[in-house]
Amino acid sequence: MRSDEQEIRDVHSTWISAVNAGDLVRLLTLIADDVVFLSPGQAPVGRDGFSANFSAVHQRIQVRCNSDLEEVVVVGEVAYTRSRDTLSVTRLTGGETTQLAGHRITVYRKQPDGIWLLARDAHTLSPVVEVRS
Amino acid sequence: MRSDEQEIRDVHSTWISAVNAGDLVRLLTLIADDVVFLSPGQAPVGRDGFSANFSAVHQRIQVRCNSDLEEVVVVGEVAYTRSRDTLSVTRLTGGETTQLAGHRITVYRKQPDGIWLLARDAHTLSPVVEVRS
Repeated sequence: MRSDEQEIRDVHSTWISAVNAGDLVRLLTLIADDVVFLSPGQAPVGRDGFSANFSAVHQRIQVRCNSDLEEVVVVGEVAYTRSRDTLSVTRLTGGETTQLAGHRITVYRKQPDGIWLLARDAHTLSPVVEVRS
Repeated sequence: MRSDEQEIRDVHSTWISAVNAGDLVRLLTLIADDVVFLSPGQAPVGRDGFSANFSAVHQRIQVRCNSDLEEVVVVGEVAYTRSRDTLSVTRLTGGETTQLAGHRITVYRKQPDGIWLLARDAHTLSPVVEVRS
């Protein structure tokens, strides 16, 4: 039997793969009904807002996300993780790639059926400022 | 006896008051030893980094923070909150005031003595872009 920590690590890696694949249907299986996402400079979004934003972005932009889990803390039916993320975004019509970097705190909730779902997420991704010599 | 939710609301309001008063000693009584703070465009900081940053900022800048708790969720010995924050920063030497706005997810942990301490915090505060007509 897999531990709760292993289950959450699986959700995290599935999440990142689905983001990179543009697989919204898969992403929606991983989030709680009352999910809230926080992003710098944007209003909080729930499930519907996330779907709309994700679809709009993936129609115009190629996204490549990398995320390293820096901690996974499980306390009963709730867990929180911290990850270090990088994001490369390139318009599908071509052009320069923009790099963003930051961190993310995610709260997961264990459901009655034992499945862990993403419930709250706040990231600090910001454009990487290149230091030129 | 006060509920866990009430205790956490008290920690939150005490935190904001202490931020505005520049009271670092008080703030340090509210955070866990292994605390991690995430901010857009900055590396994560722990207790020592928070202290150093807070002192440096308050020597140069007047900070006025407002924070409205939008949710408090307690699950056993862990809790998470979401707040909507605004921050006004003004140099003590004068000059324009910069407004920042965003949200914050905070994770609290209940200690063996029953006290709730701030353990993880990620905010999305960004400069407010004024829309001019």
